[in-house]
Amino acid sequence: MFHERSCGRVYNPVMKVPPTIRWVGNASAGHLELLDQTQLPTVVAYLQFTEVSPLVEAIRRLVVRGAPAIGIAAGYGCVLGVSRGHEHGLQPSEALAQAAQALNASRPTAVNLAWALERMRRVKPINPERLLREAMAIHEEDAGLCREIGEHGLGLLREMFPDRGEPERPLRLLTHCNAGALATGGCGTATALIYAAAESGLAVEVFASETRPLWQGARLTAWELNQAGIQTTVVCDNMVGALMAAGHVDAVIVGADRIAANGDVANKIGTYGLAVIAKHHSVPMFVAAPYSTFDRKIESGRTIPIEQRDPLEVTRPASHWIAAPQTPAWNPAFDVTPAALIHALITDQGTVQPVSGENIKSILAAAPHGARD
Amino acid sequence: MFHERSCGRVYNPVMKVPPTIRWVGNASAGHLELLDQTQLPTVVAYLQFTEVSPLVEAIRRLVVRGAPAIGIAAGYGCVLGVSRGHEHGLQPSEALAQAAQALNASRPTAVNLAWALERMRRVKPINPERLLREAMAIHEEDAGLCREIGEHGLGLLREMFPDRGEPERPLRLLTHCNAGALATGGCGTATALIYAAAESGLAVEVFASETRPLWQGARLTAWELNQAGIQTTVVCDNMVGALMAAGHVDAVIVGADRIAANGDVANKIGTYGLAVIAKHHSVPMFVAAPYSTFDRKIESGRTIPIEQRDPLEVTRPASHWIAAPQTPAWNPAFDVTPAALIHALITDQGTVQPVSGENIKSILAAAPHGARD
Repeated sequence: MFHERSCGRVYNPVMKVPPTIRWVGNASAGHLELLDQTQLPTVVAYLQFTEVSPLVEAIRRLVVRGAPAIGIAAGYGCVLGVSRGHEHGLQPSEALAQAAQALNASRPTAVNLAWALERMRRVKPINPERLLREAMAIHEEDAGLCREIGEHGLGLLREMFPDRGEPERPLRLLTHCNAGALATGGCGTATALIYAAAESGLAVEVFASETRPLWQGARLTAWELNQAGIQTTVVCDNMVGALMAAGHVDAVIVGADRIAANGDVANKIGTYGLAVIAKHHSVPMFVAAPYSTFDRKIESGRTIPIEQRDPLEVTRPASHWIAAPQTPAWNPAFDVTPAALIHALITDQGTVQPVSGENIKSILAAAPHGARD
Repeated sequence: MFHERSCGRVYNPVMKVPPTIRWVGNASAGHLELLDQTQLPTVVAYLQFTEVSPLVEAIRRLVVRGAPAIGIAAGYGCVLGVSRGHEHGLQPSEALAQAAQALNASRPTAVNLAWALERMRRVKPINPERLLREAMAIHEEDAGLCREIGEHGLGLLREMFPDRGEPERPLRLLTHCNAGALATGGCGTATALIYAAAESGLAVEVFASETRPLWQGARLTAWELNQAGIQTTVVCDNMVGALMAAGHVDAVIVGADRIAANGDVANKIGTYGLAVIAKHHSVPMFVAAPYSTFDRKIESGRTIPIEQRDPLEVTRPASHWIAAPQTPAWNPAFDVTPAALIHALITDQGTVQPVSGENIKSILAAAPHGARD
């Protein structure tokens, strides 16, 4: 059961990115496969999972990453939990609770994880078949959400940059980290706009900031976009100021790991600085995310939990010491961008502009399954 | 003839950084040694130079880097040029002209290079002994300029942060790239303030932004400061926004590669973005530089030549591919920070505040040898 990627209304021939997540076989004896994103772009390989614990570990080590993709993987993880629990004589409800708890503890910031697990917990009756159907529903729904985000975003881009998109005046977009196909079940969140723009015939040029410490911008975003035939240039994170000062950027588009009720956005470290620099240059910044990334329980960005990761990711990237061993380093995986710095939120339900708690509330009112609340 | 490092009025026991540049032997048969900064901090090794061409190549590949250090190395390079020219039957004036031309072409942005070569060209009579004296004068003078910068900067820091400097409330400084001892003939430009503050008994805590693509912040600054016993934490370049938003930074201090007549500053790529972010947080930004970094011939930052370097520095750091081969990358080595974003320039002649062409002119009026004009 392979999951075919799709983007736009019909299958998008420009998308050549292998699936991030796929379930193989039936519910009881099947397994989960994850594209190992830690090895991209050098190696394209899948890892197989038949148990929950190695999946939790894989989420921690970023084999799969990106808020929507983590949620999808966790959904399938619940299937594994109940199937294996059955073999070990556990009650389905107990097995599900254990799996959900372990998965929920894997990473703290992306709220899609808790959201997907909540959906899985509500499944009745609890059996592998029914759980697999729900996990696949989450997966396929996410692909649809990506498409919707792409269409809403494209409308906004066309409206805001009517004189951009011809080959001699391409629309020039900067994105950070990977809010791409690799981060979702579909064509991405931030990249949904980019794929939709390219598919609709607009000339698009992308800058991908490399995204230290783990280089998701260079390794994943530049790779998937260039594979799709969209010209993408890598810049170091510290070059975005010079890039904007040189007038090379029309808009910044990023994804989100959690959006608070007031519109504050937790996203990959560096997003906040990028937003400040974009504001300084009057370059509009868009945040693209499905309804599953909104957390109405959290009032503002101040209380979003920020994951701190191993300082060695900073001081010893790719097993290469860039500082003397023992040098202290700070390594928050995310930062928080205040709503005031965001020009618009682009969701599957439409765009939120200006970004305010009230506007978020009204646009999410019609969201499927209700946003997390 | 080894060059002992010194900082502050007396030899500073906290400075444990090996000399960046040293001349060994006499003028005619001696040679130049450069600490190979491309291998730091893993390997501490010196490279020997007896000819100009390999020295030019070494400057290009950043064996020695930092505006003042490049100028010093170029001074000694002229000695090599005339000594070797003599052996090859060249007239001293011809040999000097050839050496200066080759050295001047090595890197375009740091103006100290042209400044030092101009001083060397004025030496009369042209012979190795006299040239070596001038090169050493440039070298030793630079150590003195560092000390002066440190003292002026310390005064400003004490004035601006009277309630910082106790162990429980350390003065928290962020610096970018390496404007350190390794970049000069003395105790650095930006780091001169840090060493002076530490030496004067203030509790200081430093954050070093790693400085992609070549990590001079992590490899050089964190190394030299931690060696000197000053607690220094590495952050990725994209973390400076989150760091300031968290209230961890009292001031930003950087060096400069060239300062235009109006106070615009060319410095390591990332400085400009850092300045924008600092401004947003009302964190003052200081630029520390000796008079030899000022270029009165250039009116504003707009016309400062910016070196573009190999895109592979971005996409294949430390021989590790972080993007698919052939992925395009942008790699300017420097950016320009407008004077308006700089709280003060800290020079050997005193501080310039507010930063304006007029204030620069008046403070440089008394500079030794006259600033480059």
